[in-house]
Amino acid sequence: MKSYLLNPHAQLFRFGNPIETESLSYSRDRLELQIEASLPLFEVDCKTDETVLRYKMNKGDRVLGLGEAMGGADKRGRYIEAYATDDPVHTPDKSALYGAHNYLFISGHSHCGIYLDFPGRISYDIGFTHPDEMIIIIDGVDFDLYFFQNETLLETVQAFRNLQGVGYAPPKWAFGNQQSRWSYDTRNKILEVADNMRKKWLPCDAIYLDIDYMEGYKNFTIDSTRFPDFEDMVKEMRTKGFRLIPIIDAGVKIEPGYEVYEEGIEKEYFCTNIKGEPYKAAVWPGWVHFPDFQKPQVRKWFGEKYKNLVDFGIEGFWNDMNEPSIFYTCEGLKKFIEKAKECERKNLDLKDYFELETLFETLSGSKEDYESMYQMLEGHRTSHHKIHNLYGFNMTRAAAEGLQDIGSNKRFLLFSRSSFTGMGRYAGLWTGDNHSWWEHILLMIYMMPSLNMGGFLYIGSDIGGFGGDASAALLIRWSQASLLTPLFRNHSALGTRNQEPYAFDDKTTDTMRKVLELRYALIPYIYSEYMKAALKKDLYFKLLSFEYDDDHSKEVEDQLLVGDSAMMAPVYRENDRGRYIWVPEEMLLWKTVMNHQDEFQVIRPGHHYMHLELEETALFIRKNKMIVLSEPAQNVDLMNFSYLTVLAFVDHYAEYHYYDDDGISMEYKDNEQQGMIFRIHQHENAYKISVDQKGNMDVKIINFMITNMQGEFTEIVYQVSDGSLQSKQPE
Amino acid sequence: MKSYLLNPHAQLFRFGNPIETESLSYSRDRLELQIEASLPLFEVDCKTDETVLRYKMNKGDRVLGLGEAMGGADKRGRYIEAYATDDPVHTPDKSALYGAHNYLFISGHSHCGIYLDFPGRISYDIGFTHPDEMIIIIDGVDFDLYFFQNETLLETVQAFRNLQGVGYAPPKWAFGNQQSRWSYDTRNKILEVADNMRKKWLPCDAIYLDIDYMEGYKNFTIDSTRFPDFEDMVKEMRTKGFRLIPIIDAGVKIEPGYEVYEEGIEKEYFCTNIKGEPYKAAVWPGWVHFPDFQKPQVRKWFGEKYKNLVDFGIEGFWNDMNEPSIFYTCEGLKKFIEKAKECERKNLDLKDYFELETLFETLSGSKEDYESMYQMLEGHRTSHHKIHNLYGFNMTRAAAEGLQDIGSNKRFLLFSRSSFTGMGRYAGLWTGDNHSWWEHILLMIYMMPSLNMGGFLYIGSDIGGFGGDASAALLIRWSQASLLTPLFRNHSALGTRNQEPYAFDDKTTDTMRKVLELRYALIPYIYSEYMKAALKKDLYFKLLSFEYDDDHSKEVEDQLLVGDSAMMAPVYRENDRGRYIWVPEEMLLWKTVMNHQDEFQVIRPGHHYMHLELEETALFIRKNKMIVLSEPAQNVDLMNFSYLTVLAFVDHYAEYHYYDDDGISMEYKDNEQQGMIFRIHQHENAYKISVDQKGNMDVKIINFMITNMQGEFTEIVYQVSDGSLQSKQPE
Repeated sequence: MKSYLLNPHAQLFRFGNPIETESLSYSRDRLELQIEASLPLFEVDCKTDETVLRYKMNKGDRVLGLGEAMGGADKRGRYIEAYATDDPVHTPDKSALYGAHNYLFISGHSHCGIYLDFPGRISYDIGFTHPDEMIIIIDGVDFDLYFFQNETLLETVQAFRNLQGVGYAPPKWAFGNQQSRWSYDTRNKILEVADNMRKKWLPCDAIYLDIDYMEGYKNFTIDSTRFPDFEDMVKEMRTKGFRLIPIIDAGVKIEPGYEVYEEGIEKEYFCTNIKGEPYKAAVWPGWVHFPDFQKPQVRKWFGEKYKNLVDFGIEGFWNDMNEPSIFYTCEGLKKFIEKAKECERKNLDLKDYFELETLFETLSGSKEDYESMYQMLEGHRTSHHKIHNLYGFNMTRAAAEGLQDIGSNKRFLLFSRSSFTGMGRYAGLWTGDNHSWWEHILLMIYMMPSLNMGGFLYIGSDIGGFGGDASAALLIRWSQASLLTPLFRNHSALGTRNQEPYAFDDKTTDTMRKVLELRYALIPYIYSEYMKAALKKDLYFKLLSFEYDDDHSKEVEDQLLVGDSAMMAPVYRENDRGRYIWVPEEMLLWKTVMNHQDEFQVIRPGHHYMHLELEETALFIRKNKMIVLSEPAQNVDLMNFSYLTVLAFVDHYAEYHYYDDDGISMEYKDNEQQGMIFRIHQHENAYKISVDQKGNMDVKIINFMITNMQGEFTEIVYQVSDGSLQSKQPE
Repeated sequence: MKSYLLNPHAQLFRFGNPIETESLSYSRDRLELQIEASLPLFEVDCKTDETVLRYKMNKGDRVLGLGEAMGGADKRGRYIEAYATDDPVHTPDKSALYGAHNYLFISGHSHCGIYLDFPGRISYDIGFTHPDEMIIIIDGVDFDLYFFQNETLLETVQAFRNLQGVGYAPPKWAFGNQQSRWSYDTRNKILEVADNMRKKWLPCDAIYLDIDYMEGYKNFTIDSTRFPDFEDMVKEMRTKGFRLIPIIDAGVKIEPGYEVYEEGIEKEYFCTNIKGEPYKAAVWPGWVHFPDFQKPQVRKWFGEKYKNLVDFGIEGFWNDMNEPSIFYTCEGLKKFIEKAKECERKNLDLKDYFELETLFETLSGSKEDYESMYQMLEGHRTSHHKIHNLYGFNMTRAAAEGLQDIGSNKRFLLFSRSSFTGMGRYAGLWTGDNHSWWEHILLMIYMMPSLNMGGFLYIGSDIGGFGGDASAALLIRWSQASLLTPLFRNHSALGTRNQEPYAFDDKTTDTMRKVLELRYALIPYIYSEYMKAALKKDLYFKLLSFEYDDDHSKEVEDQLLVGDSAMMAPVYRENDRGRYIWVPEEMLLWKTVMNHQDEFQVIRPGHHYMHLELEETALFIRKNKMIVLSEPAQNVDLMNFSYLTVLAFVDHYAEYHYYDDDGISMEYKDNEQQGMIFRIHQHENAYKISVDQKGNMDVKIINFMITNMQGEFTEIVYQVSDGSLQSKQPE
């Protein structure tokens, strides 16, 4: 083991000779070798083919992080595996989901964290077997361990965030409402969704194409029967104000004559079996091969294929099935069928039936299948199993790099199901195939800050739930809880009840309109906070304990700080008409009320029960903070960001950096200071407001709506001209 | 439709010619026929072969009841089916579980309720399809509908409870801690559990025998290899202070020479196919027949079989697999195997694979199987499907009636997995195969009051969860939440982690000991409240809204009133160190603290955050109420109920009926007044206490520990001699 000091708060411990995953992005020029450094706090046991880390947890220790995983924000008591898995039933005991997120932070009397840069399987027993012990087993001996330590929890996490590189920036329209379903599988169905949205005045920016838009589930093809003249359709949709977002799967259909298949075979671009023959498995198209995304030339090739759809006018994609998901292999299914026949011969014996059941249940995504698939790694044929967790990351990196070449200066919407740390530089992710369960609203709330720590910023869950049937109330509460998630997408599965915002009764449609309009009104704030988090390698979602020191803030997992100024505390239980909240300092509660004026209320520090009817949405503005709004419209393109409203809650002095840019070009990259600084000084009974501008901004009017600690409200309208600020009304 | 007035609060609406289920137990001698009565509030649509009931829900309406079902106490927004189902994965969207409980109560501006006495399938769409409409579909046209209405919610539910008959009374020892697992499958394993319990000073009254104690899963047999000299073993266990509780399954193994099978065939006691041949299905023993419990002579025959085990000294049973559970039938499995072969012929085609998957998933408990099974009903061969929901009820009735004959004046422990309204007269139930999920603690809390409404009183969930792996903290919190459930049993599945109270670390064992000792200390109160609820047809578990009128009490679903005097508000989320509580009036909080004196605190009305570490258990005593305790011991038989402690929280005057009896004989039946009445008058700064005694009681010393509204504590020790009361200390 070698040790390097990266900075006062980050050390690298290198075990053996690790595979370069490229998950982090920092300069390795000046790594300072440490003599005789040893890993703090963790006990290390290096075995022949695995490594065991042990950490003795103290009574007050909380264990945060691990990204996409079941359980609360604090993972103590859990057993979690990092092994990308396509499991569509997220019951509370599932140990592995789609992503592999090997970072965790221990928050107690002091704060520390680790990141394990290792592409194979890792298991985390966080006080599950022994209540006070964390046991991490790494399925190998070659890996990088990063150790972080700083004064506060936030600074400790930032020490990790700082190594992750600038985050992915989607186009601004990608913060609008997006409507999806498996499947709007004809041109007419898509048009119907679009028309319903507009007819019911439900703002919406994008409609999704799930697998059925393809011809035979072949990537980069269009089924011309169901989608005749696709290019024209994309144009028509753009005229109506919608983008179409097609899905791309990992597997390439085996079909002679299909270009992608033929090229992949010819150039040996596919993963193989041990003999070097292309590896075959069944997914949606039937038999497929999987591109070996570990090879740079394969990434380049696959990334360029997105051009087929970009040329039709497509501006966004979602990458799916890239764990990679395997329904079955020849070998697996044959073994199962043999067992079935045996079962018949043995007169349908119970023992055979149970064996049959086990065989069937393990047919999909079996470790054996991953072990028998091979990828090329630095010139060597390597079992896919050893680098399994990189697959979705590299597929999505291929897409991102391809799209950057295709679009030159243009941003694309891109997110993926499977992920590995580092993918946040290239794309977002969604939390996969959740269910229409109330419990999964809470799960989403738990996941958001955990994912942020790993640099995944453009994130969200399938609103309303993917599997199972949503009720109207579930959709409403889920939408309210997603009010500020960067990705705001309603998605549902084949065979489930329709759950578009207009699919229920009129009252539900009205409530959903109100939620969606609030979402759109908040886009200036959401975009500003998102972009700052991406550019400054900061967090967008934070647990209360990242900002507040009091004991109770450490406990709270169902309220989140969102950006610099807001706190959310959604209702997530069926039939509840309110919830308890912890308010660590004075906050301004903004509550929308159906058919009435919104309510604003100063909430004093402490525990409260907040009434919140199904039709009401709540948002909290922190003390000496402000949020920026503009008028909602039917889509983001139609919004006018020249006219802003600033909602501020001010005790003496508040300052806010409002970031904005053109929302579509790549020019944001070196310009994190872009935007305006709003400063509000409270002086006796008046406010002094100043605005500093940097970069090109087209803001004309700013309506400052200021509430003080006593709940007194002042409205000041300012006109911006030539970069300077003028009051519209006599001061 | 005919209508009868049963009493001012209960009407019977008879549709067609219903099957007599015997679910209710009230005198039908004086049914008063109502001329031109129509069903209030519900719209009825009688179709050819089904009946649809519609009810327009108002904004504030809550829909309570429906017994064993997923979701909160308020079922609004849910879709629920009454069709007994052996589904071992209770995800939030499951519509049917093991029991069929066709009662619901609508609580809004006014209160009403219905009970549908119908043995077939019923579906309840409670605002799922249309947020404000309840649609009930009865799979038939012959049924009894009972309609209840009264001033308060409690009185409305009591109008239903009053028709249900006196509840099942288990022996007193059945309120002790019970330890189960699938499976302690040898004599040595049972002894090891018993020894561990005693060695670690963990009170325990019973250890369970799951299916492996039988020879080849044959009911009423003992595997003599694994359990040599069973009678001696039962005796040895009794000497150690444990009862053994064997399982009995519904299916009878097809095995020539096996007495139960041979008799059943000879006497035509089994359910048949349409041709009248015994119906064959596979369950644990392999191929079985199902006794036709609809026939009185079959019930008598099966009930008598329990004597085989009672003769060994057995005093309690659990009836399982009585939905009845079917793993597969010949026809089903053959169809599946044919499909598998076809899949092979078609070169493992994806479409065939999905069909195969569906076939496999529907192999167990398919409606088709139930439709092709037949039972005799009033001399007619009737499809089991039509009376499906009565199966477990009648099996358990068979057992209860058999045991009453066998034991004459003795009570047996008896509970069942499947159930129908009315079974609460004969036995208890457990909530089936839950999981080691934190969410299932909350589910248990929701289910308890819902089950009570239907007269199921001896109830509990598998503490620690049946499926999946429990953590130490989960077991502790689940045990705390079950502190007052009549059935207190830790049970877990084959292949899961051991979860006995001693199976974790020493600290967990210590905490569990403390929880168990508290449980035992509370047995006088638990038993008193249980027996009064059974005898007076009252409720043991109640939602707060049954006793408190304020608006917020209507919202609360995660706190329960237990008996007359107590409220529970357990912590049920992982890593939480406290929870919010709503206290509608002053209550006394009793909190156990590890290694310290217990804490008592007067809680003022309102919302509070209650700190409660993992090691702490909380119990609330209501105003002007008291609970009765005695010293815990290693089992109930060893407890001394002559020495009692009364914990009272008194403002002016409190009165309590302490019920007690011999705990084992049937003589309780006509003696609901049995016991003592404690009266505490607060007079200026002193208390005047009086005790009235009725029936044989052996109470010698009562230690009154009284707290007043100011939190001031007074202890008064009384000696009872010759039925009169004397102070032990100078007044």
